[in-house]
Amino acid sequence: MGSVAADIPHPFDPLSLEEIETVITAVKKEHGDVFFNVVSMHEPRKAEMTAWLANPETAPRPARIADVVVIAPGGKVYDGLVDVKTATITYWELLDGLQPIITMEELQAVEHVCRKDPGVIEQCEISGIPKEDMHKVYCDPWTIGYDERHGSKVRLQQALMYYRPNVDDCQYQYPLDFCPIYDADKQAIVGIDIPKVRRPLSKAAPINYTPAHVEKNGGYRDDLKPINITQPEGVSFKVTGREIEWQSWKMHIGFNYREGIVLNDITYNDKGSVRPIFYRLSLAEMVVPYGNPEHPHQRKHAFDLGEYGGGYMTNSLALGCDCKGSIHYLDAHFPTRAGGVRTIKNAICIHEEDDGILYKHTDFRDESVIVTRARKLIIQQIFTAANYEYAVQWVFHQDGTIQPEIKLTGILNTYSMNPGEDVSPWGTEVYPGVNAHNHQHLFCMRIDPNIDGPNNTVFMADTMASDAPVGSPENYYGNAFYAKRTKFTTTGQSMTDYNGATSRTWDICNENKLHPYSKKPASYKLVSREVPGLLPKEGSLVWKRAGFARHAVHVTKYSDDQLWPAGRHVPQTSGEPSFGLPEWIGDGTESIENTDVVLWHTFGVTHIPAPEDFPIMPAEPMTLLLRPRNIFMNNPVMNVPPSYVSIPSQIAANKEAVVNAADKMSHLAFEDKSSCCGKNGA
Amino acid sequence: MGSVAADIPHPFDPLSLEEIETVITAVKKEHGDVFFNVVSMHEPRKAEMTAWLANPETAPRPARIADVVVIAPGGKVYDGLVDVKTATITYWELLDGLQPIITMEELQAVEHVCRKDPGVIEQCEISGIPKEDMHKVYCDPWTIGYDERHGSKVRLQQALMYYRPNVDDCQYQYPLDFCPIYDADKQAIVGIDIPKVRRPLSKAAPINYTPAHVEKNGGYRDDLKPINITQPEGVSFKVTGREIEWQSWKMHIGFNYREGIVLNDITYNDKGSVRPIFYRLSLAEMVVPYGNPEHPHQRKHAFDLGEYGGGYMTNSLALGCDCKGSIHYLDAHFPTRAGGVRTIKNAICIHEEDDGILYKHTDFRDESVIVTRARKLIIQQIFTAANYEYAVQWVFHQDGTIQPEIKLTGILNTYSMNPGEDVSPWGTEVYPGVNAHNHQHLFCMRIDPNIDGPNNTVFMADTMASDAPVGSPENYYGNAFYAKRTKFTTTGQSMTDYNGATSRTWDICNENKLHPYSKKPASYKLVSREVPGLLPKEGSLVWKRAGFARHAVHVTKYSDDQLWPAGRHVPQTSGEPSFGLPEWIGDGTESIENTDVVLWHTFGVTHIPAPEDFPIMPAEPMTLLLRPRNIFMNNPVMNVPPSYVSIPSQIAANKEAVVNAADKMSHLAFEDKSSCCGKNGA
Repeated sequence: MGSVAADIPHPFDPLSLEEIETVITAVKKEHGDVFFNVVSMHEPRKAEMTAWLANPETAPRPARIADVVVIAPGGKVYDGLVDVKTATITYWELLDGLQPIITMEELQAVEHVCRKDPGVIEQCEISGIPKEDMHKVYCDPWTIGYDERHGSKVRLQQALMYYRPNVDDCQYQYPLDFCPIYDADKQAIVGIDIPKVRRPLSKAAPINYTPAHVEKNGGYRDDLKPINITQPEGVSFKVTGREIEWQSWKMHIGFNYREGIVLNDITYNDKGSVRPIFYRLSLAEMVVPYGNPEHPHQRKHAFDLGEYGGGYMTNSLALGCDCKGSIHYLDAHFPTRAGGVRTIKNAICIHEEDDGILYKHTDFRDESVIVTRARKLIIQQIFTAANYEYAVQWVFHQDGTIQPEIKLTGILNTYSMNPGEDVSPWGTEVYPGVNAHNHQHLFCMRIDPNIDGPNNTVFMADTMASDAPVGSPENYYGNAFYAKRTKFTTTGQSMTDYNGATSRTWDICNENKLHPYSKKPASYKLVSREVPGLLPKEGSLVWKRAGFARHAVHVTKYSDDQLWPAGRHVPQTSGEPSFGLPEWIGDGTESIENTDVVLWHTFGVTHIPAPEDFPIMPAEPMTLLLRPRNIFMNNPVMNVPPSYVSIPSQIAANKEAVVNAADKMSHLAFEDKSSCCGKNGA
Repeated sequence: MGSVAADIPHPFDPLSLEEIETVITAVKKEHGDVFFNVVSMHEPRKAEMTAWLANPETAPRPARIADVVVIAPGGKVYDGLVDVKTATITYWELLDGLQPIITMEELQAVEHVCRKDPGVIEQCEISGIPKEDMHKVYCDPWTIGYDERHGSKVRLQQALMYYRPNVDDCQYQYPLDFCPIYDADKQAIVGIDIPKVRRPLSKAAPINYTPAHVEKNGGYRDDLKPINITQPEGVSFKVTGREIEWQSWKMHIGFNYREGIVLNDITYNDKGSVRPIFYRLSLAEMVVPYGNPEHPHQRKHAFDLGEYGGGYMTNSLALGCDCKGSIHYLDAHFPTRAGGVRTIKNAICIHEEDDGILYKHTDFRDESVIVTRARKLIIQQIFTAANYEYAVQWVFHQDGTIQPEIKLTGILNTYSMNPGEDVSPWGTEVYPGVNAHNHQHLFCMRIDPNIDGPNNTVFMADTMASDAPVGSPENYYGNAFYAKRTKFTTTGQSMTDYNGATSRTWDICNENKLHPYSKKPASYKLVSREVPGLLPKEGSLVWKRAGFARHAVHVTKYSDDQLWPAGRHVPQTSGEPSFGLPEWIGDGTESIENTDVVLWHTFGVTHIPAPEDFPIMPAEPMTLLLRPRNIFMNNPVMNVPPSYVSIPSQIAANKEAVVNAADKMSHLAFEDKSSCCGKNGA
């Protein structure tokens, strides 16, 4: 952004520590001691922001505004806005019956209260845990989700209970069968849900993934030789503040308490012409419904982003960044509940990886060949949602493809069972006494496109056979097929599901920019194949609360502040009415043709647990693609230097010299060939 | 295999050069000068082989038998078997109306004949190519597929014609509109298909991906810094002959002219117990139907494996192995048409790659964390099918997952068009004058399971909501869901399609081995999401010839020699009757319950071309998983050493020391932090 000094934040930057402190001071001055749930950058209005992006030297610079949520004594929740520069509160509103996000500090408090609560102690004793072992009792505190007996006015958490015989044991192997309800305002247990059928503490031997346990059970394998990845000349990306440039890409990397990574103003330099691609990309919400109908398991449907925050729960990657090579990190800063500040060091890691073949072709006549290696850029965060970990990678490819990839690992959420109890079909006994319930992980990606400008249109594309029958003049041999494209003109039409049979994709197009060759509009194609439907039924609690998950795709007209598809304040929403997407779509008549649109894509996995997932789950990856189609004149990566090339005229001139040139990228695994290959066939 | 001498081939080994020579000599002696299409290892009968695998010291060693196909003068095709040790022909049969695989040499001949053929020269002149430029005329010779005017008795190829103004130009940018028919026996052009609408040579400027062209058009980018991958202590796998051991895996790596890589006797060492997993895995067939109904494009539906051979077309990876790190190679040996031998050096490459996070979990209370990195083993070949390249990777993960992955790259098959011609919806103008037709790449994987023994059963699994309505006692909150499992008891029942809405998977189970915890059968789950239906319609030419592609899954009872699902001899089959799978399934009544079964899985992509794919296609990856479920007692990779671990008791004792331990895997991208991060937020 040219001459702007480095210490002035970019309008997309998260609030700095100092800015958070300024805001907290201003709020405290006006409103006294309150609990700070949120102090986060209030995103610049798009009109103002795009004007500034187009002319940073002359357009007004969007102001730094803080989005504030506090809980005042008596559980009173306030939404506010604070102008950072002037430290002025510009908006302040008392909310009614809305519960803001649960912070980590609120979560941490519950376990301590549980351990001292006489009712919980009594239930532990019934389960077989003596009073003096209460320090071995743990809980994962979840928001209560929604419980019609308690409503939304009182801030409640449910405590999923576990016994952990040794502090170093895996927490999820001795689940308890009852569920205390915690009142966050009173900081007390206000009830306990006790099942009709009791399931006392399992007597199974512990199973752990800790070094001590592994050493005792055969030890670690010692046959993995190191693979070292080095970048002696440094990385291929440049970072200025939070703006990154890599290959043809440029973008701003934001981060907030809610979505975690937010990518803004993503452009692709197409041979000198900077093409706008996306205004904003993020994972905007998710829901993890569990499939056991027994009360109170219906409350297990975590909106991890809206209820707890993908930013708040993010791992510091200072230890074991979980990447190899040369890494650039970005920190995250948040308020503490009491009005201090905290930093998650290395909340985001950025690195490059080799990505195999970018393209290759061999002429079968003379074996002249070109092969070019691919590189990818990975912007990653990992967050821990109690038992589960989500590694969220935004992968950028040289050819214009963006590939969000999520790896699921961590530990299954578990429930108790009696010996011999048949837990099917709603769960699986993954270890003696451990019932892991079926569940889904449904993520909603918010895609705010800017394909050659804000006026975009979304189409659905289905590959179909021609209607003309075999033997007809139009399709005599029956082989005709094509991509049927359906334009979404209204929000109502856009509510569509995945169709595996037609390899359905969705094309985000700029109809004002037809490709000179193909005559098709410049577009990005959403290619997503892990798209289960929402399994909780229509009209169910989850269906009502997670309106965004009813369809794989919804398209809305852009509106400032429509960021989170289950609504702004998610905990304890009843789903009556459904907040977020269903509100915004309303009667479905709004036009979304050739205008500034947002595509909401819900994808994920349905997980039927198995013993292999326990006591810690090997990472399960899931991915999707945003692919450029009809936007570049031709293959945009022909200018990536090939790792090997020979052309027919060289081969004709001297085949031997070309064919015997050394492979410079790799070397032989076994230098002494006799030790590895036997003699036959060599 | 213990004491067996290294120079005695393993019964699964491909024929060595010497063995091929022995066989050729024996055949020539008996039958004189014939053309050799195939001299390949005839696979040991399974009963005999499994007996030997179980007791290599005492059981009879399966004999080395060669599978031979020759073409004798007059186009007479013979199938034969030769006992290698005794050099005896044990079987010899004249075929009627069957055409064996087309060899590279047969393909290469066509272009030379075309250039001299007066009819072709005349058509070139009509297209705008002067006689003296015939050396600039090229063709991709394909088998004719099936053309009802010509039948199956005469061995025919169709020549897809191109003009290449300069020998180093991309071949596919000046397609010609006519199609000569080549008689392989006569070695002459016997007809030319000329379209009603003529499309003369395009006058567009050439576009190329060669260095000279790139240098002239802005040059190569110079901002990619090297990423070096080194394995200073060598690789983690051991190779004995063609058997590989890596982590818990062991298997034999075969290779044949048809399928390319064949993996046999795949086992997983489960804490000392060697578990049989798959008897044989391969890509057994594929079909690439094109979607333009205009004559003669219906003939464009290549069975690349059955018609040309994934082994015969495989790249030598000696140059630009296309992998980094320490690589082990295996060569491939084939007969030449005239009865010599040839070697494809480095036909297979084997290497390891780092694979990111294997598992991770952080306790949100104290940030105690374990993170373990994953490693994968990749067994790869790349074959060039005229314009396209297919990089086939068999990826093995430490946790028991097998992940076949195919990368598609190379160049689009193209056809000519007139300026301004509307080529939609069956194709896309990807460059002026270049029409790339819609097409599918459908691969058929042959999965011969051996899950804890040969007696396996296949189930279909669909995740579904409970039938019980919201509000009913069984599903009051409407959140109940489960995996509905449907057992295939007969081959007919097994013919099933993909269902994206239920995230359909297929489970290959050993019902005799129930997991002690889950009570579910030991199984491998086929998780495959790129599963378009066959778009050529029911009853169409492609539908008839490619019976395997009619469904995503077929299951048959194992039978020796049922290896290739479009039949043994694929060129010029009419599809009446359909060879291969449809024959084997017949009336669909054969029992496939708890017996030795084979699962045939068809998957792939439907490709609607775009200008970004031209003149060379950035690699498009496609993948699927075979995942262990209910087979191991628990997570089988807890014994992989973590890259970082801290446990709660350590943190309690000294949090600072643990949290400040250095990240040893990576280093900072920018050592001078001031140059990269600005000042705000740092």
